[in-house]
Amino acid sequence: MKHFIRAAGGVAALAVAPAVAKEGMFTPEQAPEIASELRKAGLRLDPRALSDLTDFPMGAVISLGGCTASFVSGTGLVVTNHHCARGSVQFNSTPEDNYLEDGFLADDLGGELPAAPGSRVFVTVDVADVTDRVLAGVTEEMSPRARYQAIEDAQKALVKECEADPGHRCQAPAFFGGLQYKLIKRLEIRDVRLVYAPGDNVGKYGGDIDNWLWPRHTGDFAFYRAYVAPDGSAADFAEENVPYKPQHVLKVSAAGLDDGDFVMAAGYPGSTSRYARLAEVAYTFDWLYPTFRALMTEWIATIEEAAPDGSDARIKYESLLAGLNNYSKNLGGQIEGARRVGLVDRRREREAALNAWIAEDAKRAGYAAAIADLDALSEETAAAQKRDFAYNNVTRPQLLGAAQRLYRLSLERQKPDDAREPGFQERDMTFFAESMRRIDRRYDAAVDKAVWVLFLNDYVSQPSEQRVPALDAALSLADGFAPSDLDRFYDETALGDVDARLALMEAAPDAFRASDDPFIKLAVALHETEMRIEEEAKSREGRRSALEPQYMEAIIAWRKSQGDTAYPDANSTLRITFGNVFGGSPKDGLIYEPFTRLEGILEKDTGEEPFNAPKRQLELIDAKDYGPYALRSLGTVPVNFLSDLDSTGGNSGSATLNARGELVGLLFDGTIESVNSDWDFDPRTTRTIHVDTRYMLWVMEKLDGAARLIDEMQVVR
Amino acid sequence: MKHFIRAAGGVAALAVAPAVAKEGMFTPEQAPEIASELRKAGLRLDPRALSDLTDFPMGAVISLGGCTASFVSGTGLVVTNHHCARGSVQFNSTPEDNYLEDGFLADDLGGELPAAPGSRVFVTVDVADVTDRVLAGVTEEMSPRARYQAIEDAQKALVKECEADPGHRCQAPAFFGGLQYKLIKRLEIRDVRLVYAPGDNVGKYGGDIDNWLWPRHTGDFAFYRAYVAPDGSAADFAEENVPYKPQHVLKVSAAGLDDGDFVMAAGYPGSTSRYARLAEVAYTFDWLYPTFRALMTEWIATIEEAAPDGSDARIKYESLLAGLNNYSKNLGGQIEGARRVGLVDRRREREAALNAWIAEDAKRAGYAAAIADLDALSEETAAAQKRDFAYNNVTRPQLLGAAQRLYRLSLERQKPDDAREPGFQERDMTFFAESMRRIDRRYDAAVDKAVWVLFLNDYVSQPSEQRVPALDAALSLADGFAPSDLDRFYDETALGDVDARLALMEAAPDAFRASDDPFIKLAVALHETEMRIEEEAKSREGRRSALEPQYMEAIIAWRKSQGDTAYPDANSTLRITFGNVFGGSPKDGLIYEPFTRLEGILEKDTGEEPFNAPKRQLELIDAKDYGPYALRSLGTVPVNFLSDLDSTGGNSGSATLNARGELVGLLFDGTIESVNSDWDFDPRTTRTIHVDTRYMLWVMEKLDGAARLIDEMQVVR
Repeated sequence: MKHFIRAAGGVAALAVAPAVAKEGMFTPEQAPEIASELRKAGLRLDPRALSDLTDFPMGAVISLGGCTASFVSGTGLVVTNHHCARGSVQFNSTPEDNYLEDGFLADDLGGELPAAPGSRVFVTVDVADVTDRVLAGVTEEMSPRARYQAIEDAQKALVKECEADPGHRCQAPAFFGGLQYKLIKRLEIRDVRLVYAPGDNVGKYGGDIDNWLWPRHTGDFAFYRAYVAPDGSAADFAEENVPYKPQHVLKVSAAGLDDGDFVMAAGYPGSTSRYARLAEVAYTFDWLYPTFRALMTEWIATIEEAAPDGSDARIKYESLLAGLNNYSKNLGGQIEGARRVGLVDRRREREAALNAWIAEDAKRAGYAAAIADLDALSEETAAAQKRDFAYNNVTRPQLLGAAQRLYRLSLERQKPDDAREPGFQERDMTFFAESMRRIDRRYDAAVDKAVWVLFLNDYVSQPSEQRVPALDAALSLADGFAPSDLDRFYDETALGDVDARLALMEAAPDAFRASDDPFIKLAVALHETEMRIEEEAKSREGRRSALEPQYMEAIIAWRKSQGDTAYPDANSTLRITFGNVFGGSPKDGLIYEPFTRLEGILEKDTGEEPFNAPKRQLELIDAKDYGPYALRSLGTVPVNFLSDLDSTGGNSGSATLNARGELVGLLFDGTIESVNSDWDFDPRTTRTIHVDTRYMLWVMEKLDGAARLIDEMQVVR
Repeated sequence: MKHFIRAAGGVAALAVAPAVAKEGMFTPEQAPEIASELRKAGLRLDPRALSDLTDFPMGAVISLGGCTASFVSGTGLVVTNHHCARGSVQFNSTPEDNYLEDGFLADDLGGELPAAPGSRVFVTVDVADVTDRVLAGVTEEMSPRARYQAIEDAQKALVKECEADPGHRCQAPAFFGGLQYKLIKRLEIRDVRLVYAPGDNVGKYGGDIDNWLWPRHTGDFAFYRAYVAPDGSAADFAEENVPYKPQHVLKVSAAGLDDGDFVMAAGYPGSTSRYARLAEVAYTFDWLYPTFRALMTEWIATIEEAAPDGSDARIKYESLLAGLNNYSKNLGGQIEGARRVGLVDRRREREAALNAWIAEDAKRAGYAAAIADLDALSEETAAAQKRDFAYNNVTRPQLLGAAQRLYRLSLERQKPDDAREPGFQERDMTFFAESMRRIDRRYDAAVDKAVWVLFLNDYVSQPSEQRVPALDAALSLADGFAPSDLDRFYDETALGDVDARLALMEAAPDAFRASDDPFIKLAVALHETEMRIEEEAKSREGRRSALEPQYMEAIIAWRKSQGDTAYPDANSTLRITFGNVFGGSPKDGLIYEPFTRLEGILEKDTGEEPFNAPKRQLELIDAKDYGPYALRSLGTVPVNFLSDLDSTGGNSGSATLNARGELVGLLFDGTIESVNSDWDFDPRTTRTIHVDTRYMLWVMEKLDGAARLIDEMQVVR
């Protein structure tokens, strides 16, 4: 319920997966609607086949949570991006066996290593439209808050029913802002093992410097394997587990893809705002993004000062720093892109055009009324988020956040499981406990405090009407504060200890209320405020859920009247995007070539991270030892390629398929000029970046000696 | 004689003019030698015409000192780069009439404003080979130091004889390292007036951000007019002066130039090191550039801290800061480019190839001996420069520099004018006095001191064998120093006063020796050391002047044996470079388009400096009001274009001519990927950036209402 807690989550999601492209993130079930376009674009498969998630090729496409992946062998071999599997490489690395530096390749099945804790492979086994069931309990007369609850309760009931089948995870997300709900059932494979990852000097080549940029030369691929119990059911890691046998696998192409060729990608884009109303767009680009970006700059500087290069603390914060830097670069690109295309004006014009279409026909008057209400709501939401911005940042310290979540858990645990807030149900406890454990790897008291001081300074400089009395009272902020006032929090808390945090998962509310732990006391003191903010947000969400479906219905009909198929905003569910290998000119005076070349690595290489290709690789390139992987028109092996596909964070690792449904690449990034397409698709600048399977196979064969895996896959030559 | 005093001079030269290109900075007299190549490339003029500097078109090409320019009307109208004339715009700007911001356009001749003090237009009137006369007094037996003096004395005598013709400036520079000397006689026009310059929001569009980069959208043009006395002789500014009537003028093209077309540029490139020996290349790239660049980073930070944004001191240091930032960016590009092409290895290979050619024929044995001696000398020179690096930086404080030069002047004035060191002769006194006056505009004691502290800290951290006893004694550095030790210099000196400095130009040596001024005392104390360093350098220069001509003779013969014409390194004399309009691919995955478009300005414009085009310009572009200036194949007006011409600092403002010798553009920059071509021409990456005359005419006609000037020029449509 906190916009910036979600934004911070967004940092992680973005660190995992950026990108953008040719307009349309279609749901698989829309494939028949866009069949003629798909055929015209070059697809040789039956477009209708794409709508069955349990058939070829979509059945081979899986989710890893934040990333996308694909099955590429009948014995559970999974290919995804290096940056999606890197946490598992890091988890298994030691000073002696530095897999991040040297890469990792299991000699055989027995040598495959457990992935990082919490790693999952989700295989979709069923999708059903449940709109009627979700909305069955909703009435016109309901209060917005009651409407919110009715929908959430229906979703929880559907999920519970679905998860009665052991080993499965279910979700019932909204599409088109609540015009449609689907129940998605996925097999949750919990024994995931690391099979092969090139070293960072291939898999992360170019690092943060090349991040979001073209030209690119990153070998962003890695392999997992999914394991299940001998009886085929999902199981925790165990020696006797066996490779999972997927129903469908992708063939891997070693030939053929060239400039202009048809490509499509299937993946799990996280979130877009293509239909956001003007008030939200203006708030975001005129205030929120610039404000947050400026704060991020200070945040980064604060961490870097409190955790100097080479310190133990810095190691704990590397991941957050990388995420903040990545998100800051992304926001910079979004702000710049929005300016370039005139986003706010374009949205205003689009809304005027929609209004004009609505005004053409008296029968559409209902849309106009709903849209007017939705706009008022957007204004209110923006005002509330702006009001709570500084307060929400003040609750970022990690142990305060832990105290707040633990206290909330104790309260939720007073209710029957079905009635608890999502995130605090029994089904969530594995991840909850993991999040309590993870703090040890990412927390340093001095850094945490320095960041808290930064946010508190920002908070106390706010106008008094934006101040939160409970916070002012708890921290005695009436006359400002001194950084040393916060020392007692870090000196006296027990929450720095993982066992203390885990034990509190079982504690009763009274134990929290009676606690002397300063962070717990603060969490208890802020609880009422938190609940008020949450209740207000839920009430707004209830209103939105009644209005936005009408707005989206208008959008769909309007688009249809123009011959277009509207698609829902991204919501971390499986989507299809199609287009072509395409470089083009995203900037006046500059042309992006569609492919980069092996020789580009020689050109870029400085010998210093992140441009430190393995010496052996440089020799192979120098010797033009291309094997069978060269693209004739290019005269060498292609490394990365561009397309005009429509993608965003969460698409990382997406299978890039050719017209026959063969794997030709892995989607791993978008160009910085295209990130504003999350809000407004710009066909001129939007480009998605892929690693070419020919480069992947070349590295596997020539550099890393991964012939065992090449033999295991079906390679089309 | 101080490498870094020269490097600091280089900063200014580079601030004025960057660039690089298609190999060959030929002297005009080489035109007949390369006639067939010029014709094959597309030149439609008689190539032999290019060798006569007093005929068309070369007679229209003039020098402004650091920049190049051209006559474009029979009444002395001169076109050059905006950045070459910007000092004059700044000189005439006031808070009320802010010409930097608003641009300047004289309504008529009477409204033309005097250019900044010291502005000159140099028109070449005669060039003669004087090799025999320069070397007449040189014998085999002479000591290197005597050889140095014999050459310098001969040059001075030639210059004196030449300058007996009033109103002229002469020089007798060496070509091919002293294989050839020429006497160049130029009319020195001293009444230069500012006619027209667009505002910075056109003329400096993109500013430091776009500096050295493509794509580019800079309107880097401005107009001066040359005035002379009514009798046609050069004269100081006077009301009765009249526009100079040049013998030759360039027609200005408004039509025709397209991708691949022949272009050539005539200009005054400052300095290249294409024939530098391996020892110098290795010293420069392995030690000097990285060391100096690191120091520049601290230097810049020191100035920025001592002269905060918005302070009066900052205004005084803006120009130095811009120069340092520009030079730092350039050095970064040179270091990166040298790595990319493997400069040190390439030079080693080239020297091995030359050695092999020499070894083929016993008659070439003399070359081998000379080259071996030259290499030993290169090693010695590098060692001496490295040894003196920190010491030379310590003498950078401005008032110390002034004291050193004034004391030296008093000593030189004891000799007859002919015997004085160049720079201290009567002919130099106008510029000497101007340099003493200029300190007022560029000096702040607190900043100067902070920078001195930085350099002294660097000096005292050196190994003791690199310490200079006279400096250690004068500043009592044996046990280090405290910044406050320097306070007395700034508290007690009188040199901060311009009148004091100018008065000292007349003082006798004894007055300096008796002075209590701390900077003068230090200058006197360091004089012996300075002279020792200078004498050593002159002696090395004497050796070099005997060896390098043999090396260059070998290079010329070797190149000829390969069918190539060797050209001399740039030395600020007039050169011709030719090639084609050409974008190409200087980086894998990226193609530079040859032209940028008006619409690219809309795309780049943020409304904030340096991307703040005039509102009216944006409206004109939006309305596609191209007038007759569009390039059909581009569909719009071209703004800047790329070529593969060979250029460097000093070429700024060079006339870019088409096959018929018409002005099609002004050369104003090079791409950052090409700056290493100063040492080793890389045809793949070297690109020179020009402003298109169609953009210039479009701005003049549509935006700035400069019809009077368009009418005055001969525009080819």
